[in-house]
Amino acid sequence: MTSIKKVGIMTGGGDCPGLNPVIRAVVRAGIRKHGWEIMGIEDAFQGLIDLDYCSPHGNRWLTEAHVSGILDRGGTILGTSNRSDPFKFAVTDPDGTRREADIFDQVLANYEALGLDALISIGGDGSMRIAQQCIERGMTNIVGVPKTIDNDLRCTDYTFGFNSAVQVATEAIDRLHDTACSHDRVIVVEVMGRDAGWIALHAGLAGGAHAILVPEIPYRIAPIVRKIRERRESGNPYSIIVVSEAARPQDGEQSTLGERELGAMQRFFGAAGRLAHRISEEIDLQIRHTVLGHIQRGGSPSAFDRILGTRFGEKAVELVSRGDFGKMVALRGTSVVGVPLAEAVDAQKLIVPDHDDLVQTARNIGIVFGDED
Amino acid sequence: MTSIKKVGIMTGGGDCPGLNPVIRAVVRAGIRKHGWEIMGIEDAFQGLIDLDYCSPHGNRWLTEAHVSGILDRGGTILGTSNRSDPFKFAVTDPDGTRREADIFDQVLANYEALGLDALISIGGDGSMRIAQQCIERGMTNIVGVPKTIDNDLRCTDYTFGFNSAVQVATEAIDRLHDTACSHDRVIVVEVMGRDAGWIALHAGLAGGAHAILVPEIPYRIAPIVRKIRERRESGNPYSIIVVSEAARPQDGEQSTLGERELGAMQRFFGAAGRLAHRISEEIDLQIRHTVLGHIQRGGSPSAFDRILGTRFGEKAVELVSRGDFGKMVALRGTSVVGVPLAEAVDAQKLIVPDHDDLVQTARNIGIVFGDED
Amino acid sequence: MTSIKKVGIMTGGGDCPGLNPVIRAVVRAGIRKHGWEIMGIEDAFQGLIDLDYCSPHGNRWLTEAHVSGILDRGGTILGTSNRSDPFKFAVTDPDGTRREADIFDQVLANYEALGLDALISIGGDGSMRIAQQCIERGMTNIVGVPKTIDNDLRCTDYTFGFNSAVQVATEAIDRLHDTACSHDRVIVVEVMGRDAGWIALHAGLAGGAHAILVPEIPYRIAPIVRKIRERRESGNPYSIIVVSEAARPQDGEQSTLGERELGAMQRFFGAAGRLAHRISEEIDLQIRHTVLGHIQRGGSPSAFDRILGTRFGEKAVELVSRGDFGKMVALRGTSVVGVPLAEAVDAQKLIVPDHDDLVQTARNIGIVFGDED
Amino acid sequence: MTSIKKVGIMTGGGDCPGLNPVIRAVVRAGIRKHGWEIMGIEDAFQGLIDLDYCSPHGNRWLTEAHVSGILDRGGTILGTSNRSDPFKFAVTDPDGTRREADIFDQVLANYEALGLDALISIGGDGSMRIAQQCIERGMTNIVGVPKTIDNDLRCTDYTFGFNSAVQVATEAIDRLHDTACSHDRVIVVEVMGRDAGWIALHAGLAGGAHAILVPEIPYRIAPIVRKIRERRESGNPYSIIVVSEAARPQDGEQSTLGERELGAMQRFFGAAGRLAHRISEEIDLQIRHTVLGHIQRGGSPSAFDRILGTRFGEKAVELVSRGDFGKMVALRGTSVVGVPLAEAVDAQKLIVPDHDDLVQTARNIGIVFGDED
Repeated sequence: MTSIKKVGIMTGGGDCPGLNPVIRAVVRAGIRKHGWEIMGIEDAFQGLIDLDYCSPHGNRWLTEAHVSGILDRGGTILGTSNRSDPFKFAVTDPDGTRREADIFDQVLANYEALGLDALISIGGDGSMRIAQQCIERGMTNIVGVPKTIDNDLRCTDYTFGFNSAVQVATEAIDRLHDTACSHDRVIVVEVMGRDAGWIALHAGLAGGAHAILVPEIPYRIAPIVRKIRERRESGNPYSIIVVSEAARPQDGEQSTLGERELGAMQRFFGAAGRLAHRISEEIDLQIRHTVLGHIQRGGSPSAFDRILGTRFGEKAVELVSRGDFGKMVALRGTSVVGVPLAEAVDAQKLIVPDHDDLVQTARNIGIVFGDED
Repeated sequence: MTSIKKVGIMTGGGDCPGLNPVIRAVVRAGIRKHGWEIMGIEDAFQGLIDLDYCSPHGNRWLTEAHVSGILDRGGTILGTSNRSDPFKFAVTDPDGTRREADIFDQVLANYEALGLDALISIGGDGSMRIAQQCIERGMTNIVGVPKTIDNDLRCTDYTFGFNSAVQVATEAIDRLHDTACSHDRVIVVEVMGRDAGWIALHAGLAGGAHAILVPEIPYRIAPIVRKIRERRESGNPYSIIVVSEAARPQDGEQSTLGERELGAMQRFFGAAGRLAHRISEEIDLQIRHTVLGHIQRGGSPSAFDRILGTRFGEKAVELVSRGDFGKMVALRGTSVVGVPLAEAVDAQKLIVPDHDDLVQTARNIGIVFGDED
Repeated sequence: MTSIKKVGIMTGGGDCPGLNPVIRAVVRAGIRKHGWEIMGIEDAFQGLIDLDYCSPHGNRWLTEAHVSGILDRGGTILGTSNRSDPFKFAVTDPDGTRREADIFDQVLANYEALGLDALISIGGDGSMRIAQQCIERGMTNIVGVPKTIDNDLRCTDYTFGFNSAVQVATEAIDRLHDTACSHDRVIVVEVMGRDAGWIALHAGLAGGAHAILVPEIPYRIAPIVRKIRERRESGNPYSIIVVSEAARPQDGEQSTLGERELGAMQRFFGAAGRLAHRISEEIDLQIRHTVLGHIQRGGSPSAFDRILGTRFGEKAVELVSRGDFGKMVALRGTSVVGVPLAEAVDAQKLIVPDHDDLVQTARNIGIVFGDED
Repeated sequence: MTSIKKVGIMTGGGDCPGLNPVIRAVVRAGIRKHGWEIMGIEDAFQGLIDLDYCSPHGNRWLTEAHVSGILDRGGTILGTSNRSDPFKFAVTDPDGTRREADIFDQVLANYEALGLDALISIGGDGSMRIAQQCIERGMTNIVGVPKTIDNDLRCTDYTFGFNSAVQVATEAIDRLHDTACSHDRVIVVEVMGRDAGWIALHAGLAGGAHAILVPEIPYRIAPIVRKIRERRESGNPYSIIVVSEAARPQDGEQSTLGERELGAMQRFFGAAGRLAHRISEEIDLQIRHTVLGHIQRGGSPSAFDRILGTRFGEKAVELVSRGDFGKMVALRGTSVVGVPLAEAVDAQKLIVPDHDDLVQTARNIGIVFGDED
């Protein structure tokens, strides 16, 4: 086991409520319990590529003063970067030919030049995969902390950021009920979720949606329209449909528009716009769509996410202190544990429609997913 | 002065936080203080056109039980309608020719058949204009209550709904700061305001925007880009731009896209999308845009709007009780008064750039409006 | 297995955000999936004692319309009662002697007279114990749904209501930071938790408290004062202390006041007032205390609690449908399961200081619990 | 007119949401428009008494970076002090006698030593009175900015902080409705307001209170109990009573407790506790009381208060730039103007029961104030 003295911390991927609580916990536990120095590395691996990185974004040795007052702040004080492969770099050779160089060795050299003994990498599935890659290539002392509002990381019950995003989306849906009900409208609201429908499923349940469309369950228009009709006939002339940004219709669904036009509509207006158009082809009601967008990412983290972030940060420090590298911290029930990074990045966590309790619960209380007969 | 016994109340135009507090105050003050019967007319004038109007939307004599628990609820328990001219109706004559008939006489007959002595009409500038029209055509006993999140009604300092909409937009902008700052991004956020920029101006000021674009001040791209550059050079590599849905560029602004493509972009992505594209032509930064949409209309009214709605409703009852018809209730400083409807509907209240205190204040603290040299 | 046709549902104990989502899910799943009739029993067992129970509180066959629009509402549409033993009743015999009669037989008779085949009882540890008692005395077809903001029920990771209460308390603590920091004050804030310190522990962690005092860890004043001093000396002249309503000092702690006066102070000002006084004896700083009180119980349930309540309700329906009585629904990780009622009511779930992960995490980031050397 | 180059800014009295927006606007407008240097003076006049004042609280020349990110933060980055007379100071003479010295000359000397040309003093009525005193004693270049959550300052329609406090109190009252209604309880909720009942009046109206008790209208218990009874008899067995911290009964009101015990009760449990006890003597219902306390002071300022604070700060800069000293900025309708300080501090703004529109509105919709026959 290495003797740890200096630990780097970085945040990668899309920002997410709860990043600052993790950073704060790492700094406080690292300094107080272990007497470490903690370096905040800026903009993910960018801060290990360009060491001149400077104000207002520059690598810093973090003190408790740096993390004072950040527990309730969204975003990340370390900045972040979305680069999917930080080690590929476009270079121009002396003879003028351009090629993609691998700069991992430079990153490793910089990491060593900074005197870092270990790295805590906070990020989504991309960041966890890069961390695993680093380990395989010799930068072994890494612990991962899973972050994503999408909740699509395996091996952990929840990632922080998800609870906050669901809360924001739910409050938005609450508002839409008022306006939909006053105007007897159908409102289609699109929430985030690149590949997984977790935000749509949870916010749809919490927000009292009448239909929830997720990428894992391709939809047909008929069951959705039937639901809207049933509601209208039973005296509820409005409906709320929550749709994941990646939701898509089943193959072969007919429309007065061709596939190409519908595709354009999806690009322009998102999944919500496409669906709203399709519904309008089938039923004579006022239909509106709205895309919640980036407000789901920001804002003060919920109490749940502040606690989860704090626990994850403190656990990461413990794993580093025990030399238990190559692990990702994870929530299991009420416990926070370490799981092998390799296992966590093996595949995304998606909704398994036939086995997911929440989907069954939703169906049993009358929510439609669009695959009904 | 007519002896008043039965009073109708209706809500028209887009829904708006604060409608229910008005209805509640009218019912409580009308019944308790004057012993009136108050009829809730459904879906604006629709409820006076089709008297069979029924559950869950149907004209009802409202008791205090009907308005219990609605003070903190968005939307309107009476339903609403957006029809710009409720008295024009498409009819088919016996010989098959189709024409537009005027059904005002039928509305007046129904109003009298219901035994109503007066009408309290809650709505925006459209509804106030219709109210004025009714008066001129002989349905004289009307008092108006101004409602619009856009705040574009003259003769009143504020309409209810505006404060709530600004608060919702401000909280959304707060969230966007977190994500913009973490990613060094420019975020363009579009808020409501059909013709007037009041929501953008207020939410921009409250949300700490760096540029605010309103329909009353056509913008050029250069000052906006200069602002973004200045911020980046002084160590703030992110910017927040608040744009009103109706904001538009000055004539003759150049783009790599033709006017037609930019027009399409505005239709598809709104004012925010168009602007985001233009900025991306000028500066190499990550740019995102988001459209807040209908969440600005719904939700529990703010304390300010609940109080204003309650005061407006109670004042409307007082005006009716005094036979002071043809008036609209209005906020002037800390007082609620009655003003002539005719005066209120004469023109919209727009921002007058050179004379508006808030615009000057915003300029003086460094906010850009896009018309700077 | 009994053939189920009519199912009663009741809510007992202190109200709690999430009760309405449970009721809604039971009604919707019971009617839609099983075609049951669902009777809403008012004010817990009171509705089975007095069958004339009537408006606005009266037993009703619940339709979907009854549970429409209640998902986001705090409290319970069924009313509740805090009676610890609903079956003991004071009666006066013909000869004038007063005695306590057992009225369980009457309750059972009424239950049967209503034609109920099963009962879903939603409540805290008291309600679960009464449910267990009913089963033992022959009213066997009962399923329990655990509810308490205190989170002190065994066999379930969390009860609904807890997440909402922690969120409300956390937001209140956020506010207190502003005022404490501006005035260089110590603020002691008291949160709910009759026997267990879960709310204090979670809200303290999420709210960035500097000390957290819970009933499971009797405190001494010295470590708390030392923490306040350390903070002041390191340039943070303010501190936030979160104290559970049931927190108490270790035996033998000295004060200038006698034990009797301190006891009076606890009664009058709560745990927060008593502690604030003790701190003021030791350190010359402005100290304020505040008791959050009932605002922790009410308000719209968080998304988390709406989902948990919905899942619990739907699971209770499933258990009833399978004749799986004598169970309580429970959250285990991401699953909702049934556990034996007898096991759940065996003992309260309290913080076990030496084995609780959250306590260790809190200590490791520098939070004081008052038992430090 | 003096040529202004260096301007001091300080915040005094209780903290209040909106202070930071004022500071931000002063710094941004002062630097950008006028090229001034702005000194942040710490802890009100304390920063002019002790010039060694230092980190984390120390006078600083404020840059735009200092005020970046504070628009949405409660409290004040300058610290504050509650001292009612900052110029009185306890000194011990060489011969050992202790006396109160006047240190105004020292303050003036320090002010001049810092090279300040003017001072912007943000505070409540106490601070405005001290500012007026300074002017009379020769420190003439002062502009005042009115701040108080209590809204009891004359000459301005509203002070900032008030809107935020009312919103917080209203949301708390919303929560209490849920729990009061579920348990058929009377809940007495105490809000702030040292001498004036504005918070109680506004939050009571916005929160749907059934009775509102303010210091300006001494109450009798009979009308309050009658209101509770009427509600119960009409099927609403719960009531919410909002009471200002300074509300008090009319002389001669009877109680089973003596005046001395009731006084003790007021001291111990506040106005809410005293009232709850009195109600419990008259009616057999569950009664709870809760004191909202300091959460009303803190938290992110509402959009309204951010805008008002920003406008006030920018206007103060304008007044200083024009040499228009001895003024306080004030809101009049939708305009921000300067009014003579002397006039503003002449008397507090209290509710005038017989002439206040809001009181009349509240009475007309059935809210009781406790002075009814």
